[in-house]
Amino acid sequence: MTKLESSLGKTDLASWRKAIETRLSHHLHPTGLAKTLPCQESLDRLWQAMAHGVLGGGKRARGLLVMASAQAVGHQPLSEGCLDVACALECIHAFSLVHDDMPCMDNDALRRGKPTVHVAFDEATALLVGDALQTLAFELVTDARGLDDSTKVQILRVLSLATGARGMAGGQAIDIHRVAQAMQQPELEEMHSLKTGALILAAAESGALLGLGFQAAESPRYASIRSFAMDLGLAFQVLDDLLDVSASTQVLGKTAGKDAQAEKPTFVKLLGIDQTQALANRLHLSAFAHIQALDEKADALRDLAHALTHRQH
Amino acid sequence: MTKLESSLGKTDLASWRKAIETRLSHHLHPTGLAKTLPCQESLDRLWQAMAHGVLGGGKRARGLLVMASAQAVGHQPLSEGCLDVACALECIHAFSLVHDDMPCMDNDALRRGKPTVHVAFDEATALLVGDALQTLAFELVTDARGLDDSTKVQILRVLSLATGARGMAGGQAIDIHRVAQAMQQPELEEMHSLKTGALILAAAESGALLGLGFQAAESPRYASIRSFAMDLGLAFQVLDDLLDVSASTQVLGKTAGKDAQAEKPTFVKLLGIDQTQALANRLHLSAFAHIQALDEKADALRDLAHALTHRQH
Repeated sequence: MTKLESSLGKTDLASWRKAIETRLSHHLHPTGLAKTLPCQESLDRLWQAMAHGVLGGGKRARGLLVMASAQAVGHQPLSEGCLDVACALECIHAFSLVHDDMPCMDNDALRRGKPTVHVAFDEATALLVGDALQTLAFELVTDARGLDDSTKVQILRVLSLATGARGMAGGQAIDIHRVAQAMQQPELEEMHSLKTGALILAAAESGALLGLGFQAAESPRYASIRSFAMDLGLAFQVLDDLLDVSASTQVLGKTAGKDAQAEKPTFVKLLGIDQTQALANRLHLSAFAHIQALDEKADALRDLAHALTHRQH
Repeated sequence: MTKLESSLGKTDLASWRKAIETRLSHHLHPTGLAKTLPCQESLDRLWQAMAHGVLGGGKRARGLLVMASAQAVGHQPLSEGCLDVACALECIHAFSLVHDDMPCMDNDALRRGKPTVHVAFDEATALLVGDALQTLAFELVTDARGLDDSTKVQILRVLSLATGARGMAGGQAIDIHRVAQAMQQPELEEMHSLKTGALILAAAESGALLGLGFQAAESPRYASIRSFAMDLGLAFQVLDDLLDVSASTQVLGKTAGKDAQAEKPTFVKLLGIDQTQALANRLHLSAFAHIQALDEKADALRDLAHALTHRQH
């Protein structure tokens, strides 16, 4: 057992995941609608569809990263404010999945082992669910418990840049525009750094901002956590490509072999399985190296990175 | 000429509209992408589609309302910060139109006299354009010039509540769920107060928050402006229903007679043309009454309300 491995496993990621789930359930019950409105039934249906898109599944990688990153800078990961920010990241991720699964995008019927929102409800509802989940994410940060306004604005900036045309939406635009076209490694890496990496980076930044606030810009810990998250984000995607060809639909909870069939460019197609696995390993080690100098408060980051890069789905 | 009418027309709404347009153009050129990225072409295409959805048309009612409302509380309407917030409201509105026009919603090919985004580009791009425009709205408020963090957070709260499931998205969910079903007036009013009214109210609130900040909650002027905006929002929608049956497609810049054909519940169907016109007039007068006690700084609000309730499209 290496020194690294012996230090791993102390973080109770399962209980953190449960805390995120509980807080998400809380936010997805529209307590603001205490009185019964004339069109309550239609509104309830929208909230049910939103809950379908968010609750009951998912690795919660982004929410957990907010918490681990907060802990690494001395902020209590189970504080209400931290959980609210974790929920915001999960809402952005869920919104992107709901829209991604729609017929005009990937046209997928299965997600997290359940029918996708447009299948369980209808297409128009899926469109609105994604829209409303994006809004909810910004609302959650705006209302997050115990955060000062300056920290909220910093997190909102990080989150909006990661979500929009300079981030995730930009990555998806590359994806739909370059389907069935060969991509070289720099192009593939750019697409993934926007499509997946930007939000993973934003999760790490948001968590660190909870503890560091306006001091983040000059903090070496903030810089280390950012570098760690950039490598982790790419490793996460590289592993996704490997799992798409190696794991079953049942284990993945989404359609396996989909990217290969859809003629999407992937690392496996570009580099082959062995080289892709080697790339994943290199990124994994590089991610760890960036936070090597951090104290034991960063162990949750190490545990999470280990769990995410050794996952089977 | 009544006293009301003699005081009208002093605000140069055309130049305000031009200022919004110029600022929107500025924000829709991705200056953040100074270097050329490997997938620049795909990213440029997304920004072009976003610009198509936002620029070159529209009454800019929501942006103008931000400015008029700011002026009513003594804030300079042409300040960069005020224009940024006006642009944010217009981005939210444009995102809702782009998604509304998609085949799974209203399936419309014409908007503001141009092909809709999914026609000019494609469906997947229209989905991403709407998503990215919503994000951009929150980004613009987060980065708005000259606003303190507390004011930004207040405006972001108002904007997120108006946009999401408790506001616009909720209204649209009612719309798609209740198509071809008879509605009574309370239901129709609830649908529109969420679908259209919430964002118009948010525009008025945002403008007033620019000048009043944390004092807004206790300000009688803020309460007056809110009441004014609620009546104006409903008047705006009632007039929309009238124009749908009376104006031509060419004048509207969108397909006329659409709501009637789609078997959507409208005020005209519920009340008939004469009673609908009478309702519009009552709401118009009621809106003016709410701001009667405000000084001449509120004249821009009066001018804007007059222009919006006397529009031909």
